[in-house]
Amino acid sequence: MHDPLLLPELREMLNENDAPAMREFCTIFHPGVVAENLAALTPAEAWHVLSQSNLRQQVEIFEFMELDRQIELVSTIDKPRLSALIEEMSADDRAELLRNMDEDQVELLLPLIAQAERSDIRKLLSYPESSAGALMTTEYASLREELTVREALAALHSQAPNRETIYYVYVLDEARHLHGFVSLRKLILARPDALVRDIMETDVLSVNVNDDQEAVANKMARYDFIAIPVVDAEERLVGIITHDDVLDVMREEATEDAHRMGAVAPLEDGYLSTPFFTLAWKRGIWLILLLVAGFGTSSLLNLYDGVTEQHEWLVWFLPLVLASGGNSGSQSATLIIRSMSLGEMSRANQPRIIRREFATGLVLGSAMGLMAFVFASQYVQWPHALVVASTIALVVTFGTTNGTLLPIALRHLGCDPALMSNPLIASLSDALGVLIYYNVALLCLRLMSPAA
Amino acid sequence: MHDPLLLPELREMLNENDAPAMREFCTIFHPGVVAENLAALTPAEAWHVLSQSNLRQQVEIFEFMELDRQIELVSTIDKPRLSALIEEMSADDRAELLRNMDEDQVELLLPLIAQAERSDIRKLLSYPESSAGALMTTEYASLREELTVREALAALHSQAPNRETIYYVYVLDEARHLHGFVSLRKLILARPDALVRDIMETDVLSVNVNDDQEAVANKMARYDFIAIPVVDAEERLVGIITHDDVLDVMREEATEDAHRMGAVAPLEDGYLSTPFFTLAWKRGIWLILLLVAGFGTSSLLNLYDGVTEQHEWLVWFLPLVLASGGNSGSQSATLIIRSMSLGEMSRANQPRIIRREFATGLVLGSAMGLMAFVFASQYVQWPHALVVASTIALVVTFGTTNGTLLPIALRHLGCDPALMSNPLIASLSDALGVLIYYNVALLCLRLMSPAA
Repeated sequence: MHDPLLLPELREMLNENDAPAMREFCTIFHPGVVAENLAALTPAEAWHVLSQSNLRQQVEIFEFMELDRQIELVSTIDKPRLSALIEEMSADDRAELLRNMDEDQVELLLPLIAQAERSDIRKLLSYPESSAGALMTTEYASLREELTVREALAALHSQAPNRETIYYVYVLDEARHLHGFVSLRKLILARPDALVRDIMETDVLSVNVNDDQEAVANKMARYDFIAIPVVDAEERLVGIITHDDVLDVMREEATEDAHRMGAVAPLEDGYLSTPFFTLAWKRGIWLILLLVAGFGTSSLLNLYDGVTEQHEWLVWFLPLVLASGGNSGSQSATLIIRSMSLGEMSRANQPRIIRREFATGLVLGSAMGLMAFVFASQYVQWPHALVVASTIALVVTFGTTNGTLLPIALRHLGCDPALMSNPLIASLSDALGVLIYYNVALLCLRLMSPAA
Repeated sequence: MHDPLLLPELREMLNENDAPAMREFCTIFHPGVVAENLAALTPAEAWHVLSQSNLRQQVEIFEFMELDRQIELVSTIDKPRLSALIEEMSADDRAELLRNMDEDQVELLLPLIAQAERSDIRKLLSYPESSAGALMTTEYASLREELTVREALAALHSQAPNRETIYYVYVLDEARHLHGFVSLRKLILARPDALVRDIMETDVLSVNVNDDQEAVANKMARYDFIAIPVVDAEERLVGIITHDDVLDVMREEATEDAHRMGAVAPLEDGYLSTPFFTLAWKRGIWLILLLVAGFGTSSLLNLYDGVTEQHEWLVWFLPLVLASGGNSGSQSATLIIRSMSLGEMSRANQPRIIRREFATGLVLGSAMGLMAFVFASQYVQWPHALVVASTIALVVTFGTTNGTLLPIALRHLGCDPALMSNPLIASLSDALGVLIYYNVALLCLRLMSPAA
């Protein structure tokens, strides 16, 4: 929180019902700071503070609230007030809120909203979640290319109050085809009688309305834009995505990937705002799946029961063998999945990456096998240490290969590669590890006692 | 890549030494697109294309290149040309390049750079890596509060060409204390004779020059700024950090966290640009550490050798018990570490989080214990299944608790909590799992045969 002293002050204003102080509070602080402080109040108190300021300020503050707080607040006010608020909200934040509100409530609300806004809402709600269309706002500034810089600045002056950004202005023809863009900086520096056509950038990087939000974020990060235009299949401008929304996407996607890789089904809210049993369930389903996989490994061990009986020492190194496979697999999967998220990995360089990981597996496996031999010799005779060492070399090579191939396979199937979580990789390595371990042991033991 | 057809065209221009075409290439495309296409050429070829355009364009394109490509390119040109390039670069990109260049080369280069730029470079290089100071640029736009809007726009007009952004303008006094800021949008909308003092925002959210870059990124994400001001201990403005640099930080930090949690020491470059043996080493050190930890588990199992001999079935469920502890620990660690990175977790809500994770462990442990009992009963008599079930309940509860407490402890010690990687949590759970498993088994067996 910006200033921990604000909240007690705010409570005092409420107790004394000091309207001018509340209005000032909403005015002088950054709307994000006001929103944070209002989070500690009841909905009724929050609305009481907000209602001292004008609608524009109310909306600015409201837009900085967390989504679940927004939903909590809208459920406590009457429909006319709510429809006024929603009309004034920016197109993207509004769509995000309505997408997460109760559908029946939305249907009751829409008739109260002005026609133009209503069709804009319906259009934005029609784009699939996580697409560029769902992320964009329709409030962009636009110009015609035959204007002079002077005329362009005047036009911007009138567009400015209700555009998400006026720092990039898009140049369109009548059919809304995107011909170029010009930055406000360039407009300010240009001669007033220059034509927009002559100073605009014509190499416009854009995204398609159906592109995935992760691809949008990667493109924004690469080219340092404040906003990126969104076009439809006919190259008509339908919206823009601004830097702040991309930053949010980046955080969301990184969190989702991290959770998936730790075997937690993605949370819709933050860790702290997810209810206890929802969170337990999102972890429990994975743990139970992994438990079932673990019983597969148990059945395998059960098969080799006679071997274990004769060679007790095999048990000592069992966790070590299994962990080595799991660890090397997790490393590969982590590197591959992160590479994919960053857009570093294409179909073209995939074979090179697979070869590289296989080679890494061989190098790491050999090194670890050697170390394992040295360690294991402290406990068992050298032929047994050799069994442990060669198993580890094999298990690490296989682990690395699996950790590489499984996320790639998932992506080919159109799934999120991060579903191949570290625990899942480890659990698959366990079964494979048991197979390799016992078979290497059986082979070595047979070679060592040819009489048997 | 923006357009896969550009590269062949570029090669043709080079073959025909078509200077006007190369100049046009550098001019009409987005500098990021030009940089990507030049990446496929040799340094000499890239410089040949670049030298057809003016210095400003060369620098814009150069700044979009990957850092290691920049370092490769600067090593192939003479010092006068290099110093001209560096003088023209933006302050933050320049500092980033020099910080990563060979120190001796930098010392030879600095005398050739103009005095003003040189002291700016020395100052930026003095801030520790990953601090706000290392990330910021000194090229911000600033005004005095007594100006009118008309005067302010005129002043901005002259500052615009060499400022990183002019969309936020900072209002300073003679001692460079930050009094407020005003957006260009607001300036354009205001009456020309209004005073900057009357329209500026006075609640300026800023970061300290020594703040960590992750904290900066979280603040930017929360308040949706295009740029955030950086102040020193005396609240004097020393620089600004822009949205594009924050997006890069966010990607870097998420990648570093993901790699650490997958037990890979953080890479300085991308996965593909890290040399084979560097990458193998950054994985190998962790694997070897985990191997040593694995041998700890082996020694423990060695101690319980007599028990295993009598109760073969214990081995069947060993991987299952160990995996359950590791998986539940990884989940908790993932959630806690990600929460910390997002700045959701403070000292104040820490006790609540610990209690919550402990409760989750109990719930998940009980549920999994129950399922394990059902499964294990298929293989062994019910008292043995009970041993497996109660061990799993305990191991999951402990796993969750460890996965919560260990990252928190690391942060208290001033280390990166993501060092507590999933494999490390799993490996610590292994040792604990063996201890719990065998002791529960011994206890149950003793209770069941009181005669022994």
